Formats: sequence, C-alpha cells, structure tokens
Amino acid sequence: MATSRVAIIGTGLIGTSIGLGLREHARDRFEVVGADRDRSNAKSAKKLGAIDREVGSLEEAVEGAAIVVIAVPVLAARHIMKEMGPYLGQGTIVTDTCSTKADMMRWAKEFLPRGVDFVGGHPMAGKEQSGPSAGEATLFKNATWAVTPSTSARERSVSVVLGLVEALGATPVHIDAEEHDQYAAAISHLPLVVSTALFRMVRDSAGWEDASLMAGPGFRDVTRLASGDPTMAADIVDTNKEAVLHWLRRYRQELYNLEDAIEAGDDAVRNFFASTQLDRDAWLENPRAARTPQGVSAPSAQDTLGQFLVGGRAYDRLKEITSTTPGMSSEQDAKLRRELGAEDDDEDRRRGR
Amino acid sequence: MATSRVAIIGTGLIGTSIGLGLREHARDRFEVVGADRDRSNAKSAKKLGAIDREVGSLEEAVEGAAIVVIAVPVLAARHIMKEMGPYLGQGTIVTDTCSTKADMMRWAKEFLPRGVDFVGGHPMAGKEQSGPSAGEATLFKNATWAVTPSTSARERSVSVVLGLVEALGATPVHIDAEEHDQYAAAISHLPLVVSTALFRMVRDSAGWEDASLMAGPGFRDVTRLASGDPTMAADIVDTNKEAVLHWLRRYRQELYNLEDAIEAGDDAVRNFFASTQLDRDAWLENPRAARTPQGVSAPSAQDTLGQFLVGGRAYDRLKEITSTTPGMSSEQDAKLRRELGAEDDDEDRRRGR
Repeated sequence: MATSRVAIIGTGLIGTSIGLGLREHARDRFEVVGADRDRSNAKSAKKLGAIDREVGSLEEAVEGAAIVVIAVPVLAARHIMKEMGPYLGQGTIVTDTCSTKADMMRWAKEFLPRGVDFVGGHPMAGKEQSGPSAGEATLFKNATWAVTPSTSARERSVSVVLGLVEALGATPVHIDAEEHDQYAAAISHLPLVVSTALFRMVRDSAGWEDASLMAGPGFRDVTRLASGDPTMAADIVDTNKEAVLHWLRRYRQELYNLEDAIEAGDDAVRNFFASTQLDRDAWLENPRAARTPQGVSAPSAQDTLGQFLVGGRAYDRLKEITSTTPGMSSEQDAKLRRELGAEDDDEDRRRGR
Repeated sequence: MATSRVAIIGTGLIGTSIGLGLREHARDRFEVVGADRDRSNAKSAKKLGAIDREVGSLEEAVEGAAIVVIAVPVLAARHIMKEMGPYLGQGTIVTDTCSTKADMMRWAKEFLPRGVDFVGGHPMAGKEQSGPSAGEATLFKNATWAVTPSTSARERSVSVVLGLVEALGATPVHIDAEEHDQYAAAISHLPLVVSTALFRMVRDSAGWEDASLMAGPGFRDVTRLASGDPTMAADIVDTNKEAVLHWLRRYRQELYNLEDAIEAGDDAVRNFFASTQLDRDAWLENPRAARTPQGVSAPSAQDTLGQFLVGGRAYDRLKEITSTTPGMSSEQDAKLRRELGAEDDDEDRRRGR
C-alpha cells in the first residue's frame, strides 16, 4: 500500500529516468504518478515501469502529491506552474529539472501558492537519444545536480529534494539561480550551440555527401548535442539569452585569435594543443579538484557558493534540522526521505564509500 | 612459422589497435613487428599481444617486411619515410594512418625508392585515451578508412591495403589525397579545433572552479577531442593549414549569424535547433544515405569520387587483378590477403552479410 506520492510532469528522457531511478528505492512503499501532454509518452513510461500510474490531467497528477517533479522544457514549465497552482496541497514540495533557473524561480514566486515550497533542480545529465524509451535508472549516477531552493522554501523541503537527488545517485550542488545560469551558459549552453552550429554548417556545405562518408566518432561526439530536444534548446537560449550571447562572443574571439596563430605558423598552436590536453586530462582524472583551496582570497559570492558544494557536509547539516513544519511532520518527512533511499546512501557515506 | 611480415612503425593507440586487430586474423601464420621512438610504448604493445616482436631500430623493423604501416603524427611520418627508404625491399607496400594525406603523397614520391608502393590510409577512428594501453582490436570496426593510393602504386598493392583495412573491420573509401584533406578539414580537423578551443576557453575563464562542478556528459563529449595527441593535432593544422583556416572562418561566420538571430529572439533559432535535430537523426539512422543518387547532374570530381566508394564494388574489381608483380608473386599476394583475413570478409559479403 503506497504511503506517499511523487508526481512526475513530463515523462521524456529525464522524467522517465527519474521514475526508473526512484523505483529502485521506493517500490511498493511509494507511488509514482506520471502525466505528459503527449499521453503516449506517459503510457510508454508506465510500460517501462517508470511510473505506477498514468494520469490524463495535471490536476489529477498533482492533487495529493507530496512531491511534484516538473521535467519539461523551460517555457512549458512556466505554463505548468501557472496551471497547477490551485491543485497543490499545503506543504507540497515542487522541484524541476529545467536547464535555466532564474526564470523558474521568478515563476515559482509568481504562480505557486503560499505553503508550497519550490526547490529548483537541474541534473547535468543527458544522452544522444530522447523520449521515454531512452530513459535509464542510472542516467544520473555520479552526475552533478544543481539545486536552487527558493528563499521561502523550508529547510526540510530542501532536505527532501537533496534526498531525492542522492537517491538517484547524483551529487547535489547547492547554488544560487542567477549564478547557475551564468555557469550553465559556459559549461552547458555554449557547448549546445557550438555543437549544433557545427553539425548545421557541415551538413549544409556543398561537400556534405562526400565528407560525411568520412565522419568518425570525433564528428559524432562533438556534434552530439545537436540531437537533443530542440524545444529544450530553444527555450534555453530564450531564457538565458544575455549569458549565452556573452559566451558565444568570447568563443568567437577565441577562434579568431587561434586563426591568427595558425596562420602565423606560431609555436603558440603547439602550446595550445599540448596545454589543453594536459589540463583536460587532469580534469578528467579528478573533476572535483578543479576547486582547489585558495591560499588567501577575500570571500566572494563565488566562494560562498563553492562552500555549499553539498556532497556530505550540507547534507549532514540538513539532516540535523528537526523543526516541525505545516503540512507534514518531521516524522513524515523522515519517512519520505527513507523511502527515497537517501538514508541508505548516507549510511554508505558514513562507512567511507 | 611466420611466412610474411607486417611492420608497424609507431605503437600508440592506432598502431597497437592495428596489431591487435590483425592478430585476430593472422596469428601464427603472420609475424607483426613493431617499433616506436619511445621503446616503452612498443614494449607495452608487445605485452598486450599487439606485436609479436619489438625491435629497436627502423632498419630492423622494415627490412624484409611485406607491408610497412606508419602510425605516427604527420610530421614524424615524413622523417620515417626519409630514413627507412634505403632499407625497403622491392615490392614492399607502405601505408600509413596519418590525418592529412596530400603532404604524405608528396613525401612518399620524394623519399621512397622505386619498386616500393605507397598506398596512403586514414582510419576515421579514435578515442578519448591515447597510447598503447588504450588500443583495442575493434577500434576500426565499422569505421571509414580513407585510402589514397599513389599514382604509381600497382593495383595489387592497393588490393592488399584494402584487404588489411577490411580485415580490421573498417570500410575503405578510395579518395584523392587533395580531396581527402578538404573533406577531413570540415569533418575532422574543424571539430578538433572547435572542441579544443571550447575546453581551453572555459578552462581559462574566471568561473572555471565553480562552473566545472556543473560539467555534465555534454561538456565532456563536445570537448573530447581536446584530449587527443597534441602532436598529431598540431601536425594536422600545420599540414592542412589553408583548409582548416577556411572552415574556421566559415564556422565563425555561422556563429555570428546565429548570435544575430538569438539577439533578435527570432523564430529562426527554433528552426535552427529543430531542423538540425531532424537532419542529424536522419544521418545517424543511415549515414551512407547522405550520398543519395542525384537525378540529373553533370559528372564532377566529387561524383567520380563518390563512385569510388569502395565497399564491395571496387574491392571485387581489384580481386580480379591477376598480373604478376616483381617482388611478390600473385600467389604470394593471394596468400597475404588470405592471411589478413580479407577472403573471409569477402565470403561474408557474398552471403549477403
């Protein structure tokens, strides 16, 4: 008999993968309902076992849900927040998986009723294929998952979302929404545009039919992001326009400087390739070491952000929070987190996994 | 007892993978010797079973070899061709795996003695790791392998190289060296520069330490080529400079146009993402269909090139060649091809694999 309910709105690659991942932890103690504008998507997710029940309306999906996960492109998420507001119960936790966060925070404030806590989220995961059939329980394993709580969200709601993220095998990174969008512009949205533009241009060139015969895994990998959901991509550019343009211009300047060096037959070109290989291999070897403790540096917004790297610390801190909250007792909360499998992960961590 | 010998010069990722792939076909009937400027590389290749014997000098490696495979960065290949010339026997077949081909053809003409046949090659394959330990017998499985015979190469030498390529599971594409370099600039060298420049710029930005915490598989894939051998990369840019610069400038223009559309909040941006996804998915689904037969079109250099798409046809044609050649009888040749496993592949093809 199910005791709590998670509603997944949008059962594409991400929503389905969340459902599949939760199933590993929750199973019979937990009900997952799913809804999708395209009902055949949600029906596929049901068949795959990602959700326990498919429902045809947003209202039906969110009514009585303890947690609502919005897993759709950014602009559709705005619409969903607006529509579902009236049906959300007091104490409901709303989270999402959208690629940009500042607009999401604004819309949550505008559309979600008081007593509902919004804790934004953005899993840094994906793959070449999209849709429910591409979903995998392990999609988020070892992925970073940005978490952007609204200022009004209760600590225990943040804690529940962190539990959900960790139950899926991801590492939560607590971050301010505006900062998220700046960083994501460089590390995610710029690569998306660079990758798509590369495919577009080579595909449109007169030599494509012959050149494509020579395409190897390099071309395939570098252009991989061109196969992502185009609505998601266009929404990203729409809702993070200034930052994306900033990074695109910087990148174009980088290429321009490189052309100069190539033209001059400069040793700089050899250094460019050699130093970049070393730096990338060092990063691959130890991604987290990118944040090395700095000797002397004044605290800045960026530093505070870094200290929030959730992993164990903030999580342990949040575990200590015992305040009772309206809509759900801390006992219910603990149960919810246990059901999400977060306690098991924590146990592993204490054992020094 | 070995009856023929293949010499692999350069036992990094590519050379070692060739050795491992050949071993699956040749085993005891075939000897593979390997040499590397860095002897520890060749010793690793020996340990991995990629070569039967490690030798310390170029002379020792190529003397008596039926086939010499040069698997080093382009500029080092020039040096090797110059040095090994005097030690090559009549009828020796020299091939290579370098990323640019026009310079290779010129150097082969300049440095290789008469009676030695150069048939250039370029496997469109690679991976994130380099060095012998990254080698895999299946690295070339289903990869395209550009083949650029010198004008003086005997048909049977071309046939032997095609057999070698097919034995490794790759699909040979017969192509003119100058054309190869033009196409490779778009489909391989431009992605290499785009990928490396992206990592370089984001890595050098002030926000790297924080932004990198959010790096997901997208960033990793798009910047993958930044981890390739930097000497290979710099040599590519050196030996295919004009074509690389041409494509870099076109790409920069593409990004510039895209920035305009993004800034204008244009529907063109949505179309850009949507059409590119469709085109890329269509290409992934059926890569060879990129070359669709054109209804009416005057024969051009490109068309002739396309007709050469080797797959079965040219291969079958080459099989018919029966001319005896100096240095090796057609019987020896047939044996060599059998040992390379080409006949088996051919058998599969006749069965409609």
